[in-house]
Amino acid sequence: MNEPTTIIALLYGPDQPGLVSRVSGWIYAQGSSIVHADQHEDPEAKIFFQRIEWSPSGKIQEEAASFEEFATVDLKMTARVALSSDRPKVALFVSKIDHCFHDTILRFRAGEMSGELACIVSNHKELAQEAERYGIKFYHVPISDSAEFEAEQLRIIQKHNVKLIVLARYMQILSSNFLDAVDCPVINIHHSFLPAFAGGKPYHQAHCRGVKLIGATAHYATADLDEGPIIHQDVTRINHRNVIPDLIRKGRDLEKSVFAQAIRLHLDNRILVYNNKTVVFD
Amino acid sequence: MNEPTTIIALLYGPDQPGLVSRVSGWIYAQGSSIVHADQHEDPEAKIFFQRIEWSPSGKIQEEAASFEEFATVDLKMTARVALSSDRPKVALFVSKIDHCFHDTILRFRAGEMSGELACIVSNHKELAQEAERYGIKFYHVPISDSAEFEAEQLRIIQKHNVKLIVLARYMQILSSNFLDAVDCPVINIHHSFLPAFAGGKPYHQAHCRGVKLIGATAHYATADLDEGPIIHQDVTRINHRNVIPDLIRKGRDLEKSVFAQAIRLHLDNRILVYNNKTVVFD
Amino acid sequence: MNEPTTIIALLYGPDQPGLVSRVSGWIYAQGSSIVHADQHEDPEAKIFFQRIEWSPSGKIQEEAASFEEFATVDLKMTARVALSSDRPKVALFVSKIDHCFHDTILRFRAGEMSGELACIVSNHKELAQEAERYGIKFYHVPISDSAEFEAEQLRIIQKHNVKLIVLARYMQILSSNFLDAVDCPVINIHHSFLPAFAGGKPYHQAHCRGVKLIGATAHYATADLDEGPIIHQDVTRINHRNVIPDLIRKGRDLEKSVFAQAIRLHLDNRILVYNNKTVVFD
Amino acid sequence: MNEPTTIIALLYGPDQPGLVSRVSGWIYAQGSSIVHADQHEDPEAKIFFQRIEWSPSGKIQEEAASFEEFATVDLKMTARVALSSDRPKVALFVSKIDHCFHDTILRFRAGEMSGELACIVSNHKELAQEAERYGIKFYHVPISDSAEFEAEQLRIIQKHNVKLIVLARYMQILSSNFLDAVDCPVINIHHSFLPAFAGGKPYHQAHCRGVKLIGATAHYATADLDEGPIIHQDVTRINHRNVIPDLIRKGRDLEKSVFAQAIRLHLDNRILVYNNKTVVFD
Repeated sequence: MNEPTTIIALLYGPDQPGLVSRVSGWIYAQGSSIVHADQHEDPEAKIFFQRIEWSPSGKIQEEAASFEEFATVDLKMTARVALSSDRPKVALFVSKIDHCFHDTILRFRAGEMSGELACIVSNHKELAQEAERYGIKFYHVPISDSAEFEAEQLRIIQKHNVKLIVLARYMQILSSNFLDAVDCPVINIHHSFLPAFAGGKPYHQAHCRGVKLIGATAHYATADLDEGPIIHQDVTRINHRNVIPDLIRKGRDLEKSVFAQAIRLHLDNRILVYNNKTVVFD
Repeated sequence: MNEPTTIIALLYGPDQPGLVSRVSGWIYAQGSSIVHADQHEDPEAKIFFQRIEWSPSGKIQEEAASFEEFATVDLKMTARVALSSDRPKVALFVSKIDHCFHDTILRFRAGEMSGELACIVSNHKELAQEAERYGIKFYHVPISDSAEFEAEQLRIIQKHNVKLIVLARYMQILSSNFLDAVDCPVINIHHSFLPAFAGGKPYHQAHCRGVKLIGATAHYATADLDEGPIIHQDVTRINHRNVIPDLIRKGRDLEKSVFAQAIRLHLDNRILVYNNKTVVFD
Repeated sequence: MNEPTTIIALLYGPDQPGLVSRVSGWIYAQGSSIVHADQHEDPEAKIFFQRIEWSPSGKIQEEAASFEEFATVDLKMTARVALSSDRPKVALFVSKIDHCFHDTILRFRAGEMSGELACIVSNHKELAQEAERYGIKFYHVPISDSAEFEAEQLRIIQKHNVKLIVLARYMQILSSNFLDAVDCPVINIHHSFLPAFAGGKPYHQAHCRGVKLIGATAHYATADLDEGPIIHQDVTRINHRNVIPDLIRKGRDLEKSVFAQAIRLHLDNRILVYNNKTVVFD
Repeated sequence: MNEPTTIIALLYGPDQPGLVSRVSGWIYAQGSSIVHADQHEDPEAKIFFQRIEWSPSGKIQEEAASFEEFATVDLKMTARVALSSDRPKVALFVSKIDHCFHDTILRFRAGEMSGELACIVSNHKELAQEAERYGIKFYHVPISDSAEFEAEQLRIIQKHNVKLIVLARYMQILSSNFLDAVDCPVINIHHSFLPAFAGGKPYHQAHCRGVKLIGATAHYATADLDEGPIIHQDVTRINHRNVIPDLIRKGRDLEKSVFAQAIRLHLDNRILVYNNKTVVFD
């Protein structure tokens, strides 16, 4: 579609009087026009959060930069400012399991995602040919000495100017050093309803405990495995007739859907993180 | 709880530049502080909708009245202004089926609803004793000549200064004249996923068609039966083993939950109606 | 309704050739007629499970007793045989929180449950008057020396010939000794999606972790708190605007619905327990 | 996996005494062993339905054929007998919209479906190259004189010995003549919660009516458009911020999931059709 480009700002910081008025007043003063605005105050932490989207009146890059200065300097808020036309580069990490791999690529191709799938990184070769069929650059980085392994991944990330890494059932743990070095958010999909069944083989754990629902959780990866801020979760019903392969099959649909929604929310600039939790403006 | 009273305004009208800024600027100028604000623009109809809630700095009644004047005269918006401490009177209409009757009363007693259940009106006597047990005034208005029947109901509504009527599986159709005369919103619960299975015996219709989900719909009653603006809907899964009594039993839970959520959203001043649709700020 | 009484048998034991044939052949040989039959084999444990319901041709009590002997002696299965007209006595344990209390009582009154609510036991007096209004015997058993406290509860259970205890947000832990002594199943409702957030204050735990769904779990109580076999679970979506009182309010609806379904499934003789898991024939 | 092959029988017909016993007795007499069995009796229509799956003791083809004769001649039931190793040929019809196309193909490749995707038929050329990439034979049958158009499709179906046609958002109506001629089931996915919003542009209809949930329905195609027996349905929540492109995007996920489940249930021999409804043994 030919929708006009808008500016999107995500702001947060200590609450102070008149924030909504000052932000909207600034926009009005440019002769610009607010399309959406949503604010939230955490009543315990006394933190103010806002997502605001507007059609600029003048030169869009200048107005975005100017707003960022206003928000950080004058309002003393933490601000992230983006254009609706931005298409940040995304790297997809995968091992051998391919359902999230195909699903994510097809959604980028279908235009569901406000980003560009720049490259695929894998510790296995199995999906190289599939990636090629889709016309996406594939890097095989086999497991080796850990430092070299991560250094190689880092070179790829930097070469492609990647702004988001998504782990599509990637079976390696990213070290704290690596997460610091890449300096961009990393979204992981875990195949359980966290915090239940963290760690390995969650469908086996679920089967063993006899739960009646299985889940999937998309979260930002942090140095604490499966402990990062949760972005999105969903569940589906199982019954006593379902054996573990049934859980795995049902879980694939959950994982694809939960993973895709988390990526989309992130690329649409709808997520703020604080206190290891997320505010999702949906 | 002892939360401080806030002012809640629901506004809508043709979009115009600077609305968010002017509304938030007005509140800031009073020295008041916005707690929540949510706005929506219908991109087709070019109508602006806003729900805004703030802690007043001065005398609450005066500030609310003053804002209403500002919104209607200066901004030329349609405005509804309420206090979070308001407890408008609610009349519950019921026939013999009692699950929504009990559920609604218990929710009012549990403090889930920002309103006061003022009276119960029924065309049958069956629930008189139950109403008495709950300590709520019960009016038996038997079906009679239609004009007299509605006139009697109208006298009760007016006597109790009712601001909302809720139809808890009330099996009589309210005439267009009556709806005009009561001059307050009426929320009905229909036991299907409208527009599927409008009219009578929806569970029988659903069983006959062989659908795999049954639903319930809460909507504002209008002169067109089952055609009013939809507030809330939900569904539940059924299977081939379920006979009609199973559908009725499963449906009761749906009806209670959907009806309650619609009443609560209305009493929390979260619903705007336009073009026979609702905007629900949840 | 006037449905004819049926016999319901729940069987389980090591799998062996011809079980379905021998069971259905026995019934056919009586001239009786199977209404429903569902069987399940655990492919790992090699255990056979069956729920079978039939219309007897002759004297129902004799046929039920005769079948039980056939199943246990000839087939060497563990068997539970009941009549669809049975209405086992149920004791409801409650403390002060009353939403599951009201909901459960109203469902018994509405005929949703194949049982009889015989008495209410509470460690508080608060709900005595409400119980009386419903016409149900209420026992106040205040916390005291633990042995005496449980002995008093046990006397009540035995006096009423109770066959099922349901814990409607009962805030005391039942000891292993008590569970042995009552010798009947006990169903508990826990306000989280177990195994996540076991223990106290699960809604606070959920809020703190930042999950996007909250849940409720009905399970059989065992000596290991929150570790018993899970009967039913469900979840509902929450968002960043929801504070703990919202979680509690939304959770009430979940708890009522999950608790009620577990009780109904149990009373309809649809649950078999093995390996700390349930087989639910729904 | 290396699971042993089983025989699956779907039976239905007028209820008669001893059916379960006679069927299970027959299997026991062969020395074979029942793995699953599920039966259902429609209490209104007095029709008996059964799905039964067993491990044969002897030669599997002979035992299957022998059972079919027993079921039809001796029991006078309508019977469909299959082997769990059967992989019937499936034809996928598609136009230009490609989400169900990709999703269905990937599921066949992932081994989720007990069938073989034999060919793709389209009235457009757009997906020819994609089909080739997947290595599946693609037929472009452009719209022409209606008789010739359907004759050409029929030749393809017959050439590939197709046993199931699936319409993955195929935008042409199949004539009654064509449905008779192909003589195999046809599964369609409709993008609404039928019977609501039958016909064209259901997401536009849903948006216009202001419903709070959108749905998808998989059904067997019949000569009456959108009126065939429903196999599976699901819904997802929408809100006032969602414009029609949002409904279309959310709907794609629903359509893929509902369509895939219907195809899988059919290929697993879990569906019986009668009175324009389905019995789904899941």
